[in-house]
Amino acid sequence: MKRTALSQLAQRTTAPPISWLMQAALQQPKLISLAAGFTDNPTLPVHAARVLTQRLLRAPRTAQPALQYGTTAGDPILRELIGQHLREQDGAAAKPRACAADDIVVTHGSQQLLYILTEVLCDTGDIVLVEDPSYFVYLGIMQSHGLVGRGIRMEHDGLDLAHLESVLEGLRARRQLPRLKLLYLVSYFSNPAGTTTSLQKKAAALRLLRRYEREAGHPIYLLEDAAYRELRFAGADIPSALTVDSTDRRVIYTSTFSKPFATGLRVGYGVLPDPVRDAVLRVKGNHDFGTANFLQQLLSQAMASGAYAEQVRTLQQRYAKKARVLTSALRRHLPPSVTWQTPAGGLYVWARLPQHVRTDAKSRLFKAALQNDVLYVPGDLCYATDTARKVPRHEMRLSFGSASLADLAEGAARLGRALQSIGCK
Amino acid sequence: MKRTALSQLAQRTTAPPISWLMQAALQQPKLISLAAGFTDNPTLPVHAARVLTQRLLRAPRTAQPALQYGTTAGDPILRELIGQHLREQDGAAAKPRACAADDIVVTHGSQQLLYILTEVLCDTGDIVLVEDPSYFVYLGIMQSHGLVGRGIRMEHDGLDLAHLESVLEGLRARRQLPRLKLLYLVSYFSNPAGTTTSLQKKAAALRLLRRYEREAGHPIYLLEDAAYRELRFAGADIPSALTVDSTDRRVIYTSTFSKPFATGLRVGYGVLPDPVRDAVLRVKGNHDFGTANFLQQLLSQAMASGAYAEQVRTLQQRYAKKARVLTSALRRHLPPSVTWQTPAGGLYVWARLPQHVRTDAKSRLFKAALQNDVLYVPGDLCYATDTARKVPRHEMRLSFGSASLADLAEGAARLGRALQSIGCK
Repeated sequence: MKRTALSQLAQRTTAPPISWLMQAALQQPKLISLAAGFTDNPTLPVHAARVLTQRLLRAPRTAQPALQYGTTAGDPILRELIGQHLREQDGAAAKPRACAADDIVVTHGSQQLLYILTEVLCDTGDIVLVEDPSYFVYLGIMQSHGLVGRGIRMEHDGLDLAHLESVLEGLRARRQLPRLKLLYLVSYFSNPAGTTTSLQKKAAALRLLRRYEREAGHPIYLLEDAAYRELRFAGADIPSALTVDSTDRRVIYTSTFSKPFATGLRVGYGVLPDPVRDAVLRVKGNHDFGTANFLQQLLSQAMASGAYAEQVRTLQQRYAKKARVLTSALRRHLPPSVTWQTPAGGLYVWARLPQHVRTDAKSRLFKAALQNDVLYVPGDLCYATDTARKVPRHEMRLSFGSASLADLAEGAARLGRALQSIGCK
Repeated sequence: MKRTALSQLAQRTTAPPISWLMQAALQQPKLISLAAGFTDNPTLPVHAARVLTQRLLRAPRTAQPALQYGTTAGDPILRELIGQHLREQDGAAAKPRACAADDIVVTHGSQQLLYILTEVLCDTGDIVLVEDPSYFVYLGIMQSHGLVGRGIRMEHDGLDLAHLESVLEGLRARRQLPRLKLLYLVSYFSNPAGTTTSLQKKAAALRLLRRYEREAGHPIYLLEDAAYRELRFAGADIPSALTVDSTDRRVIYTSTFSKPFATGLRVGYGVLPDPVRDAVLRVKGNHDFGTANFLQQLLSQAMASGAYAEQVRTLQQRYAKKARVLTSALRRHLPPSVTWQTPAGGLYVWARLPQHVRTDAKSRLFKAALQNDVLYVPGDLCYATDTARKVPRHEMRLSFGSASLADLAEGAARLGRALQSIGCK
């Protein structure tokens, strides 16, 4: 038998590019990984989780509902607390009726929500606008669903609006607007580039998308992925795109408890306009009819007790320190031709090398890095397939999430030696 | 703007038929629901969960890994324990190298695995064979993906093999075998009919499917959903289809910790042959890159400590009692024309009424039941759309899962009054 029983989706779905990086890490026990997307181990909320699970499981009155099925949309109390939390984050900019519990869906990590949103909005061949570079697991979802990515150039404060407009004009000229469904934006300390999009740019992007809707024949959504929003350790928070959505119906906002609390819980959430919310709920009904209730109740307790806010503060301080250690070691060990923005939050440093120094997995540098027992994410893995531009191959993502302080410093030194060994100055 | 931005999948995905039943239940506070798929509240493992989470979270050495990301396939120790558990269940019939940890994938409930399996095996228009009747959430997944269902008639010990063969012959005659991907079988105390498929029939079904593979041009899988296997309270366990898969490559086995431990944890698992396993892992990488690690470690502890086995024994005794209470009340209150098989496990009684007495949501009986404050699942909701036969409309699913002992007895009495009120004898 020659033919496979696998579906077209399965055949399009490749292993995530980072999986063999992880494999490499496992095979070299001395390797320091600045590639991993894991978070800081020592600050995981062990004490809070112990106290809160005890409280939850002490009496059948609270324990039984936590161990029983809930609803597809998620625990009503948790959704209420999430809404309140989002309104507090958006502060004075928040709209009076924004983020009602009914608009909120709790999911198995925000990753599941990104997946379902793509399922409910996009057919094979549809077009999604993404940042250049963008979150590679989202690019994997797009590839799996046979979607076409168009990369939007970035500036230090987010989207290059002129480029966004020219891409939209190009789609209009080629009559491809009916296939355009959304703009995917990792709007705070983005993975991988660490970019935060200004509120002005979010508002301008929304207005631009709106302008092309008539020719698209349907809504074009701004999907704001705020996974790293709370990991800010410098400057003031920027209100979400929800605050500048004049229609209240074009912004889809997703976030998570993984990064600001504990990755091992895998609980995320989103604020969804109708009819997207209803469609997501119907499809989530088929995925799992609801996220693990036990974890939701645990997070309700964490939010209501203040343990969540305390954990966020702990992580902000911790990552501030880790970012300082990594960037000061990079300054010490890397040649002056390598540049990066000092991170104000998130988990990543996005380093740009001279144009001619390639960083991809087949490059001399990547091999030299492995020989020096240090691993980074090659930047080219973070670009959508888009024939309209060449994929840059001289960038890398460095994470200060999981490595220890000592390993961050030593990793930077090793990277410096690898660069030196290939003659990069 | 008239056109929706929603995908074809979203437009095909309707609300689950049971959602408005749940809604009805909420609106009538005195209503006794024999429709809910929830499990028994008083026996939820509150004490075990408290002890095990304490143990897990006592020291950073075990707590930190539990609160950190894991791998897409699932915790290696849990997968090892699951493999061992499955080999013990299959006993002497188990193959020596069956259920290796590498063949096992842990998912967000077995529901998520059913979803991903369908994604990786089926394109729109493909054909899936299902039991008549079958699990309605799986039927929802099929509808969402635009699949064609063909219902196989059932006997007391499972599939009607002659009918299975005639359906396969029909597909061959119409040259539709290339679209046939799998046979979905809820093989133990099925939802909804309570049917358990004998080992002989599983083996015969596998041989039959195998015979048509050459003309299909690809493998045809037997998807064995064993969600209710451990909820047996009478008779001896039957080995899984894995034990009669002569090729070791045509059976996909799924099961769950939801039903035999706690539904609030939402952890399921499967044993998958290559290349299905690899495809499932790639797609799960996009869904969530792994099930909540905290829950997996909790279940590892439950299995290793014996708490899991103890909970299964508790539930077996409890559901045995609940089944007895419900069926004896049904015998007392329902007219002799209503028949059912005495359950030997699971959560359901499948009742057949005289052919002319309709049970569907628009029927006189359904309205009479609501008027008498009792709810059942109309049987017609559990049949795939299959133009080759008429959907029976004289059956109902009654659950003894969540209602209390008193409510089971009273619910049966109310159902008896509803039947009496429409003149059913």
